[in-house]
Amino acid sequence: MGLFSKDIETLDDLFVHTLRDIYYAENQILKALPKMIKQASDRGLVQALSEHLEQTRTHVARLEEVFRMHGAEPKAVDCPAMDGIIKEANELVGEVSDKQVLDAAIIAAAQAVEHYEITRYGTLATWAKQLGREDCATVLVETLEEEKEADEILTEVAKGRVNAEAA
Amino acid sequence: MGLFSKDIETLDDLFVHTLRDIYYAENQILKALPKMIKQASDRGLVQALSEHLEQTRTHVARLEEVFRMHGAEPKAVDCPAMDGIIKEANELVGEVSDKQVLDAAIIAAAQAVEHYEITRYGTLATWAKQLGREDCATVLVETLEEEKEADEILTEVAKGRVNAEAA
Repeated sequence: MGLFSKDIETLDDLFVHTLRDIYYAENQILKALPKMIKQASDRGLVQALSEHLEQTRTHVARLEEVFRMHGAEPKAVDCPAMDGIIKEANELVGEVSDKQVLDAAIIAAAQAVEHYEITRYGTLATWAKQLGREDCATVLVETLEEEKEADEILTEVAKGRVNAEAA
Repeated sequence: MGLFSKDIETLDDLFVHTLRDIYYAENQILKALPKMIKQASDRGLVQALSEHLEQTRTHVARLEEVFRMHGAEPKAVDCPAMDGIIKEANELVGEVSDKQVLDAAIIAAAQAVEHYEITRYGTLATWAKQLGREDCATVLVETLEEEKEADEILTEVAKGRVNAEAA
């Protein structure tokens, strides 16, 4: 969609645009997660991130399913928000030397990613219902619940181990 | 803090860095919210955003209090994540013509902002506790709860009115 061209006229347009936004974001996460995993030390953290990498592949496939169900082309639009979140993560991680502190920074970065996904999937599920697309909403809520769970797992890892060691 | 200079050595350094990140973010939100309020139509939405603008001023003051409590200089560091979230919000809003659809887009943008704040304040509160700074944690949790509440209010506005009208 072109900037300033007022391409979004209906809630349906906004829904498809936002699907494309999170589709881009999920694909960026697929690229970012392996780097985070490589830099992490704590076993629980490595495991949580590795499992989330697998989940993310499923989330991309589910988005493609929603595109199909809704008869929209599964393409990506730029998502400056996710670009910014990943840029900030890379910059922060680059500034940390100590391994345990690095783990704490990686958890914080991964949780910022999760929260962006939580807000977008929450919004998309609400709009899908309002558009009468309960079928799409069901698929989107499935991913939403997994994103929330991934965020909670990271909180547990942070509280239980990594940060205590770093402090 | 300089990039790639490994300036963050301890969890305390990471805590102060992240305080400065959210301090920058809150100040950017102070600039972005009045524009969102001007563009919103739904009365409930205008009210929710206006109240959050007031709260944001309190959040900035609370951050300055935490800086003082912790003996750190209250300065901002660049926050590419919040820059990206606000850039995306401006771009999206610029593409929507219909008033009700615009309200739906504004809610989604404001919730992305809220979720970034929720993740950062959650992380900061956890770190404050691990650093033995229960005093700082208490202030940070106060803001965290208000951010969560603001997000819930926006969800209610979205579910109850704006999106239904737009669809």
